[in-house]
Amino acid sequence: MSAEIICVGTELLLGEVLNSNAQFLAGQLAELGIPHYYQTVVGDNPTRLQQAVAIACNRAQILIFTGGLGPTPDDLTTETLAEFFDLPLVEHPEVLADIQRKLAHRGGTLAANNRKQAFLPKGAAILPNPIGSAPGMIWQPRPGLTLLTFPGVPSEMKQMWQQTAVPYLRSHGWGEASIYSRVLRFWGIAESELAEKVAPLFDLTSPTVAPYAGNGEARLRLSVKAKSEPEADALIQPVEREIRQITGLDCYGGDDDSLASVVGQLLQARHQTLSVAESCTGGGLGEMITQVPGSSGYFWGGAIAYDNRVKTALLGVEPEVLAQHGAVSGAVAEQMATGVRSRLGTTWSLSVTGIAGPEGGSPEKPVGLVYIGLAGPDGVISHQARFSAIRGRAWIRRLSACAALDCLRRRLLTDG
Amino acid sequence: MSAEIICVGTELLLGEVLNSNAQFLAGQLAELGIPHYYQTVVGDNPTRLQQAVAIACNRAQILIFTGGLGPTPDDLTTETLAEFFDLPLVEHPEVLADIQRKLAHRGGTLAANNRKQAFLPKGAAILPNPIGSAPGMIWQPRPGLTLLTFPGVPSEMKQMWQQTAVPYLRSHGWGEASIYSRVLRFWGIAESELAEKVAPLFDLTSPTVAPYAGNGEARLRLSVKAKSEPEADALIQPVEREIRQITGLDCYGGDDDSLASVVGQLLQARHQTLSVAESCTGGGLGEMITQVPGSSGYFWGGAIAYDNRVKTALLGVEPEVLAQHGAVSGAVAEQMATGVRSRLGTTWSLSVTGIAGPEGGSPEKPVGLVYIGLAGPDGVISHQARFSAIRGRAWIRRLSACAALDCLRRRLLTDG
Repeated sequence: MSAEIICVGTELLLGEVLNSNAQFLAGQLAELGIPHYYQTVVGDNPTRLQQAVAIACNRAQILIFTGGLGPTPDDLTTETLAEFFDLPLVEHPEVLADIQRKLAHRGGTLAANNRKQAFLPKGAAILPNPIGSAPGMIWQPRPGLTLLTFPGVPSEMKQMWQQTAVPYLRSHGWGEASIYSRVLRFWGIAESELAEKVAPLFDLTSPTVAPYAGNGEARLRLSVKAKSEPEADALIQPVEREIRQITGLDCYGGDDDSLASVVGQLLQARHQTLSVAESCTGGGLGEMITQVPGSSGYFWGGAIAYDNRVKTALLGVEPEVLAQHGAVSGAVAEQMATGVRSRLGTTWSLSVTGIAGPEGGSPEKPVGLVYIGLAGPDGVISHQARFSAIRGRAWIRRLSACAALDCLRRRLLTDG
Repeated sequence: MSAEIICVGTELLLGEVLNSNAQFLAGQLAELGIPHYYQTVVGDNPTRLQQAVAIACNRAQILIFTGGLGPTPDDLTTETLAEFFDLPLVEHPEVLADIQRKLAHRGGTLAANNRKQAFLPKGAAILPNPIGSAPGMIWQPRPGLTLLTFPGVPSEMKQMWQQTAVPYLRSHGWGEASIYSRVLRFWGIAESELAEKVAPLFDLTSPTVAPYAGNGEARLRLSVKAKSEPEADALIQPVEREIRQITGLDCYGGDDDSLASVVGQLLQARHQTLSVAESCTGGGLGEMITQVPGSSGYFWGGAIAYDNRVKTALLGVEPEVLAQHGAVSGAVAEQMATGVRSRLGTTWSLSVTGIAGPEGGSPEKPVGLVYIGLAGPDGVISHQARFSAIRGRAWIRRLSACAALDCLRRRLLTDG
């Protein structure tokens, strides 16, 4: 038993719209534990839509459609499905009345082409749309096959899914055992290296362990089918513990954690504070830290010292040190960190100075070379980092900020 | 003749990843004028992937795959395609050497499972990956059928598409009459209001004019089918001129312009400089400004004054003013702007102070209330802005930074 998602809309084939509906529905199916092996996108074209349906209904028992329920002539999903299963369309006066009411509410009137939205295939039940004019349907055109249709507007589709479709699916025996998953996040280790370290765990079946990468970090996904969250946790936790033991400090968190949120939790637990001095990241480190709600509890702020004059004026970096070592150096990173820490009086401070490119690189100091300074109660240190210039400016800047947060994270975790 | 997109990845079926690759490729196919009628998403499962390929290669002549090229055991796209078309895998030492070089560059070493990334089906050409380890391929497993494979990482896929795939497709007679489009970007006007102002232009056929919105800005897309860029420009430019005349300062730029890049061009033309003082944006404004390569030519930096102690210590905001008006006030925004401008000696300075939420709002000062300060040669002014709290913290912070840049943009454009 499995479900398939069929998204209907020429705008998807033209790349004008990001298919967030498919992601939402996929996540919902996963949570409900309803297997889901294929997604199809097809345009507002009856013949091709029928071909897609013909393929899908031989593979799955639940077909979920989004799009093509609107009033305009190119909205053809309902008619096309009725034709495919060779059943007539029946008018539902209550739907027309509901559309009329909604339009009036917005000061509009019923257009001729709204009328067709009140027609559903014989035997189909209305899937009410609490927001927009287009209703969907829940339809069993033949035994063992259920179709659900939704409008393409994400806000309408989501409400209809949660309010009507999910209760319907549950009441029909779907989604009794759901899939729970846990994502573990890593910094300072490549995906391939991580995969080798935990390779034996890839053979597990409950939970399954799968690696993937994104935004410069490696991740592991632990997934398990269970009847409840506690049951899932009982299966996932021992494996998570083993992974954390194998990977040590490289595992910085899980699920919705970010390096910034993890550092924030560590600082809050210690009642300590943080400031920053940024050159090549230009504010990106502070932006990352303050993405975390409540970061005002431990983050005070700092200086964007993009130009050397600011490094001197706001942070007291010595002109001689700038002249001798250059702005991109461990010595300047350390003076930036100590400068902002002493001026703001925070427990810790982080600094970043580097060459984000595309210009400004040299043989000795290539694009992607970054120095990170970390000042704290027991003095200041600096680290050198090298990021791939090929990935470009934005990548180097983002990873520089992440690397700075990771320096402080490891420092706090190894703190006596 | 048509193309199909097949995105491979269990993470897509679990809803963990938004399928932005499909949207990008769909838009690119549309621009190239290559018909595209179906998209399929399938998991990292050889049997199901082969079923998807069997269906697609009976419908289309170009199959574009994303995902499943990585080093880990669940990356199976290449092997699966080789097996489906019953051709052996051949090792490409030059690919292995390239992967080795890239890993070494990042201080990593070749893992055993990187080795499989160097194997491609017999007769397949390498589609080089300038960024990551996973190369793609361009393969004609049989006459009249071309397969292109890309990694799932969007940044890698996009570069490989533009640098290698597009030239290949053009050189093979695809995309001769391409669709050229020009995007005009607007700030300070709602999509509906913009649509009303330019409504008559929606009836044009060459170029077509279509409105759409995203990231808080309204946009118009002018699209035309043409044999060359000059031919396209000749059709688009008169319409663009008319739109700019109708919309005036609300149109800030086109295509890849950002508010930050446009402000940067204006400052450079005047040989003027800019500094910032940020509270609720926490560095996001500086980050946005320094996203622009070469921004060091006009942007000096500033202060992240997240905590009031920093507003006082680094910017000289008077404690009485903070006490009397509160941190989120026009008076404090103005003192932040004048403070950073006088300390750094820049021509202009921008400040932002507001309530990004989710906490910290009050009846008088709700979440989404933001004050922007602009200091320049002829004094300082502040603006009040209100952003929808429902859209959340990240949205309010981003739009606050954009609104600050737009204040300066309009000031520079109306400057005597």
